[in-house]
Amino acid sequence: MTIRLYGFWRSIASFRVRVALKLKQLPFEEIPVDILSGEQFGPDYGAVNDERVVPTLVHGDRRVFQSLAIIEFLDDLMPEPRLLPSDPADRAYARSLALVAVADAHPLVTPRVRNHLVKMFGADANAIESWAKHWTIEGLATYERLLERRPPAPFALGPRVGVADICIAGQIVGAHFLKLDLTPFPAVARLADHCFALPPFAMSHPFEQPGYRAAAPR
Amino acid sequence: MTIRLYGFWRSIASFRVRVALKLKQLPFEEIPVDILSGEQFGPDYGAVNDERVVPTLVHGDRRVFQSLAIIEFLDDLMPEPRLLPSDPADRAYARSLALVAVADAHPLVTPRVRNHLVKMFGADANAIESWAKHWTIEGLATYERLLERRPPAPFALGPRVGVADICIAGQIVGAHFLKLDLTPFPAVARLADHCFALPPFAMSHPFEQPGYRAAAPR
Repeated sequence: MTIRLYGFWRSIASFRVRVALKLKQLPFEEIPVDILSGEQFGPDYGAVNDERVVPTLVHGDRRVFQSLAIIEFLDDLMPEPRLLPSDPADRAYARSLALVAVADAHPLVTPRVRNHLVKMFGADANAIESWAKHWTIEGLATYERLLERRPPAPFALGPRVGVADICIAGQIVGAHFLKLDLTPFPAVARLADHCFALPPFAMSHPFEQPGYRAAAPR
Repeated sequence: MTIRLYGFWRSIASFRVRVALKLKQLPFEEIPVDILSGEQFGPDYGAVNDERVVPTLVHGDRRVFQSLAIIEFLDDLMPEPRLLPSDPADRAYARSLALVAVADAHPLVTPRVRNHLVKMFGADANAIESWAKHWTIEGLATYERLLERRPPAPFALGPRVGVADICIAGQIVGAHFLKLDLTPFPAVARLADHCFALPPFAMSHPFEQPGYRAAAPR
C-alpha cells in the first residue's frame, strides 16, 4: 500500500518523518505543501489535514498528522527496526527527549509564529532571527544537559537509533538553518554526527531536498 | 511505590498528568514548583529535571518528564483504564489530537514565552493577553474542525475517555484562564462538559488547586 507524505523541504517535522520512513525502508511519495506561501491554508490541503500543518501521512484510508504520532504509528505498522524502545522506562525517556524538541523548542520557531511576531510586534528580520536563535539555543542547551546526565552510547538510548535521536537531529537541523556554532553543545554535536553518518538522516536533511535548490535559503 | 508529581497549580501540562493519575486512581503526592517566580530554574529542581519545566513524575528511581510521555508511561504502568486506544489507527488519531495542544497550541502561551515577549518586544499586559488569546483560539478552532469531522461519542475516540480528551480539556482550561467565549466552538465545549462532569477532571482543574486560592488569578 502506497504511503504518501504531505511535507515541505524546510519543515523540521517533515524531516523527522522522512528519517523514520527511510530507517524502516518504507517507500513513500512526498507531496510538497509550501508552508512559506501559505499553501496549507488552501481548501485542497484543508481537506487532507484539518489542523493545516505539515506533515500528514496517508496510508490507505488512514491519515495521521503530527510528526510524533506518525513515528509511533510507523512503529506499529512496521515494528522493525523499532524507533521506540521496548522497555517501558526507556520508552518513557525516549518520548521525553523527543518532546523537548516537539513540544517545547520547535513550536516557537515555525512560520506561523514568525508571521505573528511580524504582525503583532512589527518584528523585523533581525528580531525574527534573534527570536529563532534564542529558542533553538534553549533547546540545544537542554539536550546538552540531558545528554551529559545520560551519555549517548552512541545513540541517546543506546546502540539502536530511534525517535529521540530523530528529534535531536531535527533540533540540529534548526541550528543549521541559523548557522549556529555548536561548540557549546559537544554532546549534542557528537550525537548528530552519528545520526547524519546514516543515509536515512543525511538524505532527509532539508538541504538535500529538491525544494531547497528551487528556493533561496531562508 | 509512592508517586510524586512535581507540578504547579496553573500549569496546563500538570493538569493533564493530574487527570491521568486520578483516572487511574493512582495515589500521588504533588510537590509545587512555582514556575511564575522561576523556582524551576533553581538548583533543587534542576537536579530533578534537566529541562527545568513542570511536570516531572517520579516513580521509584524513574523520572519522567513531558506530560504526554508521562501519560503514556502511566498507561504502561497501569494499563486499565487505558488512556491510549488499543487499535493502532485509533491510537494514532488520539496522539494526533493530543499533540495539537501539546506541540502546537500550548507551547506558545507558557510563562517562558510570555517573559521573552516582554524582554524582546517590550510587550505590555494587553499585548501578552492578546498573544495568549490568539494562540488559544487557534487551538480551539483546530479542535472544533477536527471534532466536526469525527464527532465525539461522547469522548473524542468513543465511549472511553482518554489522552485526547485530557489534552482538549487542557485547552479549555487555557480558555478559562482567558475568560474566552466558547460559543464559536460548540463541539469542543460539549466535549469539555462531558470531561469536567468526571471528578478526575473537575478535581484537577487549576482553579481547584490549593495554589490557586493562595495566588491572585492571573
